Amino acid sequence: MSKPKYAIGIDFGTESGRAVLVETKTGKEIGTSIYSYENGVIDETLPVDGDPVLLEPEWALQDPQDYVRTFQKTVPDVLSQAGVNSENVIGIGTDFTACTILPVKSDGTPLCTLSDYRRNPHAWVKLWKHHAAQPEADKINATARNLGQTWLDRYGGKISSEWFFAKTLQILNEAPEIYDAADRLLEAADWVVWQLTGIEKRNSCTAGYKAMWSKKEGYPPDTFFKELDPRLEKVVDQKMSRDIHSIGEKAGELTAQAAAWTGLREGTAVAIANVDAHVSVPAATVTEPGRMVMIMGTSICHMVLGREERTVEGMCGVVEDGIIPGLFGFEAGQSGVGDIFAWFVNNCIPEDYHQEAQRRNIDIHQLLEEKTASQRPGEHGLLALDWWNGNRSVLVDVDLSGLLIGATLGTRPEDIYRALIEATAFGTRVIIEAFEQNGVKVSELVACGGLPEKNKMLMQIYADITGRTFKISTSKQTPALGSAIFGAVAAGSRAGGYDSIFEAAKHMARLKDEEYRPIPDNQKIYDRLYAEYLRLHDYFGRGENSVMKTLRQIRDEVI
Amino acid sequence: MSKPKYAIGIDFGTESGRAVLVETKTGKEIGTSIYSYENGVIDETLPVDGDPVLLEPEWALQDPQDYVRTFQKTVPDVLSQAGVNSENVIGIGTDFTACTILPVKSDGTPLCTLSDYRRNPHAWVKLWKHHAAQPEADKINATARNLGQTWLDRYGGKISSEWFFAKTLQILNEAPEIYDAADRLLEAADWVVWQLTGIEKRNSCTAGYKAMWSKKEGYPPDTFFKELDPRLEKVVDQKMSRDIHSIGEKAGELTAQAAAWTGLREGTAVAIANVDAHVSVPAATVTEPGRMVMIMGTSICHMVLGREERTVEGMCGVVEDGIIPGLFGFEAGQSGVGDIFAWFVNNCIPEDYHQEAQRRNIDIHQLLEEKTASQRPGEHGLLALDWWNGNRSVLVDVDLSGLLIGATLGTRPEDIYRALIEATAFGTRVIIEAFEQNGVKVSELVACGGLPEKNKMLMQIYADITGRTFKISTSKQTPALGSAIFGAVAAGSRAGGYDSIFEAAKHMARLKDEEYRPIPDNQKIYDRLYAEYLRLHDYFGRGENSVMKTLRQIRDEVI
Repeated sequence: MSKPKYAIGIDFGTESGRAVLVETKTGKEIGTSIYSYENGVIDETLPVDGDPVLLEPEWALQDPQDYVRTFQKTVPDVLSQAGVNSENVIGIGTDFTACTILPVKSDGTPLCTLSDYRRNPHAWVKLWKHHAAQPEADKINATARNLGQTWLDRYGGKISSEWFFAKTLQILNEAPEIYDAADRLLEAADWVVWQLTGIEKRNSCTAGYKAMWSKKEGYPPDTFFKELDPRLEKVVDQKMSRDIHSIGEKAGELTAQAAAWTGLREGTAVAIANVDAHVSVPAATVTEPGRMVMIMGTSICHMVLGREERTVEGMCGVVEDGIIPGLFGFEAGQSGVGDIFAWFVNNCIPEDYHQEAQRRNIDIHQLLEEKTASQRPGEHGLLALDWWNGNRSVLVDVDLSGLLIGATLGTRPEDIYRALIEATAFGTRVIIEAFEQNGVKVSELVACGGLPEKNKMLMQIYADITGRTFKISTSKQTPALGSAIFGAVAAGSRAGGYDSIFEAAKHMARLKDEEYRPIPDNQKIYDRLYAEYLRLHDYFGRGENSVMKTLRQIRDEVI
Repeated sequence: MSKPKYAIGIDFGTESGRAVLVETKTGKEIGTSIYSYENGVIDETLPVDGDPVLLEPEWALQDPQDYVRTFQKTVPDVLSQAGVNSENVIGIGTDFTACTILPVKSDGTPLCTLSDYRRNPHAWVKLWKHHAAQPEADKINATARNLGQTWLDRYGGKISSEWFFAKTLQILNEAPEIYDAADRLLEAADWVVWQLTGIEKRNSCTAGYKAMWSKKEGYPPDTFFKELDPRLEKVVDQKMSRDIHSIGEKAGELTAQAAAWTGLREGTAVAIANVDAHVSVPAATVTEPGRMVMIMGTSICHMVLGREERTVEGMCGVVEDGIIPGLFGFEAGQSGVGDIFAWFVNNCIPEDYHQEAQRRNIDIHQLLEEKTASQRPGEHGLLALDWWNGNRSVLVDVDLSGLLIGATLGTRPEDIYRALIEATAFGTRVIIEAFEQNGVKVSELVACGGLPEKNKMLMQIYADITGRTFKISTSKQTPALGSAIFGAVAAGSRAGGYDSIFEAAKHMARLKDEEYRPIPDNQKIYDRLYAEYLRLHDYFGRGENSVMKTLRQIRDEVI
C-alpha cells in the first residue's frame, strides 16, 4: 500500500486565515491551524507610521501582508502538527472572502506596500464588507437599466455596493491617482494564488458573481463602462483580464519563494482560486442539482446547482462554472441571521438571564434555547420580519428593516428569541420557493457553518418551516476542506489526488449521521404562520406600505 | 380670623388606601397616610382558615375589612400628623377603583364575612381587574346588539368584562346561591360611604360608567336583563337601586361607629362616592369643557367634559353628572402605557445598563431617558403600535397586540424605549382626534399620576405629538385631594367648605408652574410619523390585516 497523500486547503476569512491538512483518500482532517491577521479589519485608521490616517464610516480594509503571513504561519504549523512530510502533500487550494479587491503593479506588488501610496486608503485591500461605494453601485444599476443591460437579470435586477465595479469606480472617483497607478485590479482570491504560483490567473467564481462576467457573454460591453465613466471604458482590457479559468482547474505550481514560505515542495499543484461560500458546496457533498447548501452563520448564503440558466427573482447571481464546472451555480442570501440573534442577546436580554447562564456555566443562546425548546409552534403568539440588516434575497432592498408583531405584557425574552429564529427560517423558505417557482429544484438542504453546530432547536425549526430534511456537513472548517478538495483535484489522480471535483467530493466530503426531518404537526402550524409572514413580507417589502423607507428617510433627514 | 377648616379625602386603590388632610381655604395638603391592605389583591387563595380555597386564573378579589381598616388607620394618622382637632374637619370624601363590587345583606354586611359564605370566592369583593367574566361580557354585548339596545353607543359599542353586569352575571352563573343570598349588589365605592353614613346611596359615576345607567334613560330595561337570563329580569329593583345621586351631593353624616373608627366628629358631612380617575378631574383644576385630564400611570385614563352628549368612536363611556354635576363626562383609555415601559425594562434591558444605573444610583427608566433625551424625533428610525395590552380606545379590542417596526442591527435599547413612549403618545393623539372629530373640544391637556412626576422627556414627547400644551397637577395624591374637595362641598360654605364643586376646585386645586409646550420643529416630524402610525393603526386594527388575531388564535389552539 502506498503512503497516504495529503492536500492543504486555506480559507482566508474576515479576521483570520485557516489551514487544514486533509488526507486525500478519506477526507480526514489531520491538522488545523488558524492565524489571526495582525492588522485584522482596518476600519478606523491605517496601520502606517506617522500622522494617523483616519477612515470614513462604512470603510473596511485589509493588509495583503496578512495573507502572506497566513501562508507562512499556518502551513508549516499543520505539517508539523501532523508530522507529515511535504513530499506527500500533493496539492494546495485556497478560498477567500469576496468581493475583496486590491490594486497592484504589473508584477503583483500591492500599491499599499509602496511608500508613494501607503498613506492612501484606496491603495489598500477593500474588504467585502467595505460599504462606502453605495453611490457608485446606484450609478451602475441606473446606467445598466438605462442601457437595457440584460446581464442585470442574472443578479436579481440589482448589483451590490460590495461588488467589483462599485469598488473600482469608487477608487476612480475618489483617488484617480491610485486608479492610474494600478496596473491590475483584482480579487484578493486571485492575488494569493498569484503569490503561490507566480502567475496571474483569474477564477470564474468571483468573475461571475462579483464582476458581472459570464461564460457566454463575458463582461459587460465597453460601451457600458464608457457610459458609466469615460475613463472606465477599457477597464477590463487595461486592468483586468478576459481570460477566466473555471474553478476546478489547476492554476499552476508552487514557486520556490512560496515553497520557502510554506515548507511545501516547489512544484506542488495549486488550484484556481475560489470563494469561501462556494467552495463549501462540494465540501458539503453537493455536486449535483437538487440539494441546496446553506452556510449558516451571521448571515446565510444559499447555493444550489442547475443544468440550465434561470432567472430567479432577487437572487444574488447565477454563474456557469461558478460553483461546480459544467453546471450553473445559483446563489441567494439572507443578510442578517446569527447577527440578529446576537443583536437581540446583546440588547434585549435582562440581567437575571445572564446571571442564570453564568451560574449554570452555559451560553446565553443555550439558555434561551432551553427556555423555549419545548414550546409548540405558535405558542408565543409572535411573528417577525427578519430584516434587521435589510433583505438580500428576494427583495434586494437594504432599506427594509426589522418588524416584530404580537407582543403582549406576557411576552418573554425567549419568546422573541424564538420568533426571530422562525423569522429567519421563513426568510429561507421565501428563497427556496422563489427557486422552485422558477424551475430550480430544491428537494433537500445541507447546512454548514457555525449555527448548525450549536443550535438543534434552530435546525428543527428550519426543517419544520421549510418542510425539507436538513443534513449537516461534518467538517468544522468546511471552506478549508473544500479548498483542500480542489487542491487534490489540481494535483490529479496520478499524483494521488482526483481528476474531477465529482470524484474528489465523493471521497473527501462527508455528512453527519444526524439529520433534521420536518415534523408534520409542526409543519401544519408553520404553514399558517408562513402565510401571515408572506403577507407582511409583501405588504412592507413590495411597496404597498413603504413605512420602513419613510422611517429611514426621516432618520437620515434629522441626523 | 376664624380657625382654618379641613376636609379629608380617602382614595381606595388597588394595593392600599390613602388619606390626605387638606385645608379647605387653600387646598394645602397638611397630612398624608397610606395603609397597605392586609390581604392586598387576592388572586391565588382566599384568606380563610382550613383547607386552602384556590382561585382560577384571571380572578382578583379584595377583602372589605381592608377598607374599614383603611378608615381606622389612616384618618387618625393624618389628624395626629397635622395636630388638627377633629372639630375643624368639616367633610370627608372618598373615591374608589371601579368597577369593584360586592354582594351584601340588607344591612350592608358583606357575604364574605359570614361563615356560611366565607369559603365561596363569589362572596368576596370582585376587584376592577378581575377578568374572569369575559364570557359574560361577550353575552351582554351580543344580547344588546341583538335587541338593538341604544345605550351600547354610549360605551363605544362594547362593554367590558370588568363592568357591573358582567361580574354580576358571573356570580349568577357560577354561584346562584350567592346571587340569591345577596340582598344587595353594589360598588365598593358606595359600600364604604354606607359604612360611614349608615345609609345606602349610590353614585352617578359608577352607575353611569360601569352599570349602563343614564340620567335620562336610567338602566337598561328589564326585558334586556330577562333576555340575558330570566333570573336577572328584576336585578335592578331586587338587588340595586334606581335612586342614583349625582357626584357633588352630600351622602349623609358620619355615624357614631364611623366617628369611633376615624376619630372624627359624629355628624361630619360625607360626600357621595366617586371613582379615583373621575375625582381627579376637579383636583386637576378642570370643571369646564375644553381641557382634557389624563391620569398617566400603568395605563392612561382620558377625561373631558362637554355640554352635550356625543357619540365618540371607541370611548369608554359618556355619563351626565359622571364627573362634574350638570355636564357630560367623557372617558377614554389606553390599556397599556407605563405597563409597557415596565415590561420593556424587565424583559429587554441588557445587564450592563442595569449595572450602569446601579453604579450611578439612578432608576433604569432615568438612565434610558438620559440616553435618548437628546435624540431628535425620528432619529432612531422606529415606530411602534402601543397595543401590548390590547386597545381600549378607540378600537376597543383586547386581541390586538404590540408591533415594533424599523429595527436594525444598530438599534439600541434606549431607541426602543423612546419609540414605545412615542407610540403611547400617538395612541393618545388618536383618542383626542376622535373626540374633536365628534365635536368634543380638547384644547389643552392636564396630566396627573405617576408618569408626569418622573419623566420630563415623556411629557415633552406627548406635547410634541399631540400638539397641545400639557399642564401638571401639583398634588402627588390627586384622587385623594379630589375626594377632599368633594368632602368640602358636602360640608357646604356655612361650615367653612363650598357650595359647589366649581367654587371648591377654584380654591383647592392647583397646577404646577412648569408646563410642556409643543416644539414646532418636533411637531413637524411627529406629524409625519403620526401619519405612518395611523396607517398601521388602521391596517392592523380595523380588520384589513387581522394577523394579530390569527396569531392569538393559533396560540390559543396550541396551548
